[in-house]
Amino acid sequence: MNFASDNWAGASERVVAALAAAGDGAMPAYGGDPLTARVERLFAEAFEHETHVFFVATGTAANALALAQAGRAGGVVFCHAGAHIAVDEAGAPEFLAGCRLHPIEGAAGKITPDALRAAIARYPAAAIHHGQPMAVSISQLTEAGTAYAPDEIRALAEIAHGAGLPLHMDGSRFANALAGSTASAAELTWCAGVDMLSFGGTKNGCFAAEAVVFFDSARAAGFAFQRKRAGHLFSKSRFVSAQFAAYLEDGHWLALAAHANAMAARLAAGVAASRGARLALAPDGNELFIHLTRDADSRLRAGGAVYHGWPAETLGLAKPDDGVIVRAVTNFRTRAGEVDRFVALIDG
Amino acid sequence: MNFASDNWAGASERVVAALAAAGDGAMPAYGGDPLTARVERLFAEAFEHETHVFFVATGTAANALALAQAGRAGGVVFCHAGAHIAVDEAGAPEFLAGCRLHPIEGAAGKITPDALRAAIARYPAAAIHHGQPMAVSISQLTEAGTAYAPDEIRALAEIAHGAGLPLHMDGSRFANALAGSTASAAELTWCAGVDMLSFGGTKNGCFAAEAVVFFDSARAAGFAFQRKRAGHLFSKSRFVSAQFAAYLEDGHWLALAAHANAMAARLAAGVAASRGARLALAPDGNELFIHLTRDADSRLRAGGAVYHGWPAETLGLAKPDDGVIVRAVTNFRTRAGEVDRFVALIDG
Amino acid sequence: MNFASDNWAGASERVVAALAAAGDGAMPAYGGDPLTARVERLFAEAFEHETHVFFVATGTAANALALAQAGRAGGVVFCHAGAHIAVDEAGAPEFLAGCRLHPIEGAAGKITPDALRAAIARYPAAAIHHGQPMAVSISQLTEAGTAYAPDEIRALAEIAHGAGLPLHMDGSRFANALAGSTASAAELTWCAGVDMLSFGGTKNGCFAAEAVVFFDSARAAGFAFQRKRAGHLFSKSRFVSAQFAAYLEDGHWLALAAHANAMAARLAAGVAASRGARLALAPDGNELFIHLTRDADSRLRAGGAVYHGWPAETLGLAKPDDGVIVRAVTNFRTRAGEVDRFVALIDG
Amino acid sequence: MNFASDNWAGASERVVAALAAAGDGAMPAYGGDPLTARVERLFAEAFEHETHVFFVATGTAANALALAQAGRAGGVVFCHAGAHIAVDEAGAPEFLAGCRLHPIEGAAGKITPDALRAAIARYPAAAIHHGQPMAVSISQLTEAGTAYAPDEIRALAEIAHGAGLPLHMDGSRFANALAGSTASAAELTWCAGVDMLSFGGTKNGCFAAEAVVFFDSARAAGFAFQRKRAGHLFSKSRFVSAQFAAYLEDGHWLALAAHANAMAARLAAGVAASRGARLALAPDGNELFIHLTRDADSRLRAGGAVYHGWPAETLGLAKPDDGVIVRAVTNFRTRAGEVDRFVALIDG
Repeated sequence: MNFASDNWAGASERVVAALAAAGDGAMPAYGGDPLTARVERLFAEAFEHETHVFFVATGTAANALALAQAGRAGGVVFCHAGAHIAVDEAGAPEFLAGCRLHPIEGAAGKITPDALRAAIARYPAAAIHHGQPMAVSISQLTEAGTAYAPDEIRALAEIAHGAGLPLHMDGSRFANALAGSTASAAELTWCAGVDMLSFGGTKNGCFAAEAVVFFDSARAAGFAFQRKRAGHLFSKSRFVSAQFAAYLEDGHWLALAAHANAMAARLAAGVAASRGARLALAPDGNELFIHLTRDADSRLRAGGAVYHGWPAETLGLAKPDDGVIVRAVTNFRTRAGEVDRFVALIDG
Repeated sequence: MNFASDNWAGASERVVAALAAAGDGAMPAYGGDPLTARVERLFAEAFEHETHVFFVATGTAANALALAQAGRAGGVVFCHAGAHIAVDEAGAPEFLAGCRLHPIEGAAGKITPDALRAAIARYPAAAIHHGQPMAVSISQLTEAGTAYAPDEIRALAEIAHGAGLPLHMDGSRFANALAGSTASAAELTWCAGVDMLSFGGTKNGCFAAEAVVFFDSARAAGFAFQRKRAGHLFSKSRFVSAQFAAYLEDGHWLALAAHANAMAARLAAGVAASRGARLALAPDGNELFIHLTRDADSRLRAGGAVYHGWPAETLGLAKPDDGVIVRAVTNFRTRAGEVDRFVALIDG
Repeated sequence: MNFASDNWAGASERVVAALAAAGDGAMPAYGGDPLTARVERLFAEAFEHETHVFFVATGTAANALALAQAGRAGGVVFCHAGAHIAVDEAGAPEFLAGCRLHPIEGAAGKITPDALRAAIARYPAAAIHHGQPMAVSISQLTEAGTAYAPDEIRALAEIAHGAGLPLHMDGSRFANALAGSTASAAELTWCAGVDMLSFGGTKNGCFAAEAVVFFDSARAAGFAFQRKRAGHLFSKSRFVSAQFAAYLEDGHWLALAAHANAMAARLAAGVAASRGARLALAPDGNELFIHLTRDADSRLRAGGAVYHGWPAETLGLAKPDDGVIVRAVTNFRTRAGEVDRFVALIDG
Repeated sequence: MNFASDNWAGASERVVAALAAAGDGAMPAYGGDPLTARVERLFAEAFEHETHVFFVATGTAANALALAQAGRAGGVVFCHAGAHIAVDEAGAPEFLAGCRLHPIEGAAGKITPDALRAAIARYPAAAIHHGQPMAVSISQLTEAGTAYAPDEIRALAEIAHGAGLPLHMDGSRFANALAGSTASAAELTWCAGVDMLSFGGTKNGCFAAEAVVFFDSARAAGFAFQRKRAGHLFSKSRFVSAQFAAYLEDGHWLALAAHANAMAARLAAGVAASRGARLALAPDGNELFIHLTRDADSRLRAGGAVYHGWPAETLGLAKPDDGVIVRAVTNFRTRAGEVDRFVALIDG
């Protein structure tokens, strides 16, 4: 009954097996190996487009270094007020990309076109003192467990591009967003105007497999130096390649995410049908925010359920008088039995 | 017959097995897991001292972030002119630690006490324009494949400490230095005055296992934020812990390094006994610099040997008229047969 | 009738005369001159305390470099949401001090103790992801034209110090705050817990005279390098010294500020007595925020008055339906006649 | 008899008078004033070309921020080993421009085309580890008091441009180089391929007047933010404009530099004719490096002459056994009598 986070899970069996197989033999370092070449092909296939893929150590690094590609003096990045880059990266974007963040409030973890337009308008070119717009960043899934529809992404991309700004997507849970959508990977990214993607595999069945993905070569120019200078060029690059190869082949990543999402849906249904709990937000992937009565919370904790309490205000919700807001995250390995036990404990 | 680099090798069987075992089960993220706690104990045992261990993605990150702990405005880091931080890290130390490097020439990849003293003396406290000393960094093994003896380290540490500077050791091949020495890990580090160590496991049998090690808590204060801000805090930290646990347990790391060193010694002996090759520098670990006649070079290449040509000047040697300088690196998996075939090809 | 900004004014006659006198003769560069030594004594006298004074080019540089002295990885600076460092410095604090800003809302441009306490509490030491507190910064005058009383400063300082954070004061209009207060320079700064002060002379009668002032030597350690590395060490330092010497001697600075404040009070009285205008905020120095009817605004503009419209929300005010919010700033040279003409135009 | 440095001198009478005149009246801040517009025209006239002029506080800031315009991750700037940016700016280029410096040795303070070509060749595009070329920087006058001829500049510019790199010129003593040359300002800069110029007025008769000059608008794009973010946008910009207006009008700057150079030539002639001194390098402007016997040195010091001893190695000279190397700098105000007294003291 562990719903603490999808990064508490280990790695999928296929990923583990691929890593084991990669332990053997001599291979060029720094990405010059055939396994990395294969992964690059798998990315191009998954996105049905030219891709330029760069492995980095963490999602935080992926976000900050992707933004650094848009770096400019006095640069301002527009993002949701609860975005991971704004709240959970200890200043990595500011440090690695030399930018400032302009947080934008918005319901359900999303930025609206109007809010984005208004935020950008606060930085007219002549007003040197305020800085200059540099990029727009959205998260998919958002930090509120919701997903942008392709049209929503396109609307933000048009505003960004209209202002000369690239659109970055923090896709640490991109697989879950994709598995929960009828759209393709292409439709959720470059077709909708996404210029750079932080593509996360870690939360969905890898040990440590994160990449920055660009969809055209101009945008990727010089990124190899960006990454190296930040200490993110792995020497035995194969250890990421092996994970990604297993992850992307035969739709394994989508199967893993679909499972996690299905478990989340099962949990959501149980919550909705319960007396002691209700969904605080409608989930689009594997991350649920649940309002629990204090009794239900106590029973769950006592029964061994693991999950985090969550500050309501970061979700744009009022702090409840009559209970607590908690986060429950399912993962590629969550079992139906765990979900059912959780649900059973809600109402005792 | 691949002697290109020790980072072309994969991972040892024990490391692979440990990773596979770590694929299962739920574990707190970000280093709060029992496996990480075990690794911390293994480090303390290996160094017979209090250690504060922080995993990072690469040796470059380890070096730059360790130096960042000594960061100060206008700071200058003293290192050998051929040091990895000076030549092969694309400005990571300058970027992540906010410093400048002062390269010091020296034979066999080493800094001498006199040269260090003279270099530091060029930055008197009153001369604001030149900047201020910040740290001294040495490599063990050096980039020339040599090792500092404990007394040599202590002599440099005394000068550094006398000037109020910490001593950093880039130990990407620390295991090979240790395996090649009669001294203990303690004697090569904190006993000799080393304040911070970049401890590399990647080149010696891991996939990606690098750590910054401090020997007292004051020196480590705030480093968790230093690492996080640079995007080097792994979420599924267990994937590094598992590697290091297998690596450090039962002296596995020393066995791996001893094997690589033994293969290097076998190669060195073969070279010394040959007509078409001679050692350009006396090796202390698993890295050899060899002077080859052009004939020998052609025969080796044609025979399938893989190794890199090396610019003589970076080793403090004159460019040879009568041949080439090449680097041959053995690793934990190099086989005696490979070495012998290489040696056999030298003289045809 | 120019009330656009106090940085539209030139320099006082005494300052001009002092500069002219400093044109002659040979003097050591970089602050080693007798004029600089005299200025240092004048600062110590003005603040009745040991001071460590460093000239820099601008108020932005003073703020960012003062904060840089408290620099730490992942560092967070707490300031008012409308602070100059948050809104008008194009990312200089983030860039030069390597920090992030945590903006705090508050009426009349001020931070309350409760709001500060709550903001700091969001960065517990164990939560690496959020970053770590680094400093608190307040402005005196604030960006809303108000001033903190000594007790208000002390209350914030106690919270800051209790959390191990230094308190920085952006004093670009410190002279106006001081002239408007019954407290002494000491009582408004180090007595109340201020650790570092950006002391501005430019807006109050100098051409370009800004300094970072520390009240103890430990806090100032290494700042000379901080300044040099940012390109803020003037070679002919005398040109700042000459300005500050004239500015600080015989209370000239207080006379200049008292005049500006008196003109602001005269304007405030005229506004209060008018029909077409009212004060949006009660002013404490030389900066007024005025609510004008549209008619009054038109008449003033047509009559040649110069001033800036101001976004109500940055002052914590609602956007008015029935007029506009404007800012009017007096300066050391504002004439009573200008003020009276402005007042006369309000009601036509 | 003060030959310590040209930054020990004050300001010329015309500059002082212009500043005094600028003390009066209201003028838009931040460079929106008519005086700044006039200065921009004067620059365009002086260089017979479109110019984009940005005032900054110091020569160090001008150099570092000009280079920052060429900023790229892992960027390497090629400069002479004795360049001001390499030796005397406490890491400002690394810090503000995010680069590393690659120092190039060369006689008489100059880089040769061959040496530049060889240095750039050490950074092939594929070798991520070494970083990537970013800019070439030369000084005019050099730190050895010499000047590049237009052909010499053009040869370096062609190599730089051929490698896709802009050519920066540190012109802190540009006026002296120009006054000592038969070429025009245009011929020494953009005609010869200079892309960005640090233009110094401070050493030659201003108090503090430094500017970054670009010769086309694309190169200058975004520089206003670069400057602001580093805290180098003066609010009362007129105080720099006034200095530059007086400095550039009627060839005042060239008259000042010509005087300084004439005094240097007079000193050089005296040195050449003496027994106790000889020129260590042939001077091209107002900066002399002189070999003095110990006797001559003692006599000069005792007689009240002020000048700095200089480390021979930074000039590419051997440390003399039979005396000392000293630097003597003349300035816009040096009197012939001072020079003659100095010369007279050499041989007693």
